[in-house]
Amino acid sequence: MTEAANIAQGDTVLDAPIIKELIKLWRAQDTHGSWENRSDIYLLEPYILDSAKRRQLPIVGDPDPDTIRRLELFFDAVALSIERETAVMIQPMLKMNHEGFGRMVLIGGRLIVLNKQLRDVHRFGFESLAKLVGEGDKYVKDGVSMIRKFPSVANY
Amino acid sequence: MTEAANIAQGDTVLDAPIIKELIKLWRAQDTHGSWENRSDIYLLEPYILDSAKRRQLPIVGDPDPDTIRRLELFFDAVALSIERETAVMIQPMLKMNHEGFGRMVLIGGRLIVLNKQLRDVHRFGFESLAKLVGEGDKYVKDGVSMIRKFPSVANY
Repeated sequence: MTEAANIAQGDTVLDAPIIKELIKLWRAQDTHGSWENRSDIYLLEPYILDSAKRRQLPIVGDPDPDTIRRLELFFDAVALSIERETAVMIQPMLKMNHEGFGRMVLIGGRLIVLNKQLRDVHRFGFESLAKLVGEGDKYVKDGVSMIRKFPSVANY
Repeated sequence: MTEAANIAQGDTVLDAPIIKELIKLWRAQDTHGSWENRSDIYLLEPYILDSAKRRQLPIVGDPDPDTIRRLELFFDAVALSIERETAVMIQPMLKMNHEGFGRMVLIGGRLIVLNKQLRDVHRFGFESLAKLVGEGDKYVKDGVSMIRKFPSVANY
């Protein structure tokens, strides 16, 4: 069994809507077609950061551009999923401070539909793809519920 | 009449609350006391960009850190003025794209109290101090009115 297959933990996780959204976003980045023959799992693998991998990273550090890109695309996928469910256009805004601290907000109209304080961005990742799906789905649910609660602000 | 005095256009402008807030913020930056003997006008002078000065700047350009700092402190002053009037804590968030485009939002709770698309940030400035006060006051008014309109979101 390859490591990639291990990560997938069965096909069901790969079928999750948030994963499909994320894969679409990553494929759209691939303007030169260099990932055409790569599997979806190959593209998602850098999101997986199990305890062994995590221990190898410094406690405090400045996130590199690749990590920030991964984080942005993850929240882009959340934003698109909220859009699909509510028809409200969502714009993400990221503010990075020093040493991996930051804030991500997803904005719909004049509403902050999701507000996330970030810590240890240089160690952004998930124990497993299932955990990624769980967290992504939770954010989508929170965002959708904020929009349903304050529709006049989201459509301002 | 010195250029500085010209800029001031009378003491009334310097007495505007937004100017007082801005001066306080600039003085707070001065941790080494190097501006102690400098007048308020000296600190505000870089905000003034009349047509002659503006013509000397390139049409398109990446804003330098000093210009971004000036812009941030201007919106910090707006944020503090809104806070003073509404008792809602306001956090500014700036996203800069390339070539001087960007977006500034002032956030209170889950509400975007002010949303400002930015263009030509490398040429950020005002024709006169009176114009700065006029624009700042308008932003404060807009922000306060958003909070009064959606208090439950601002206090979420």
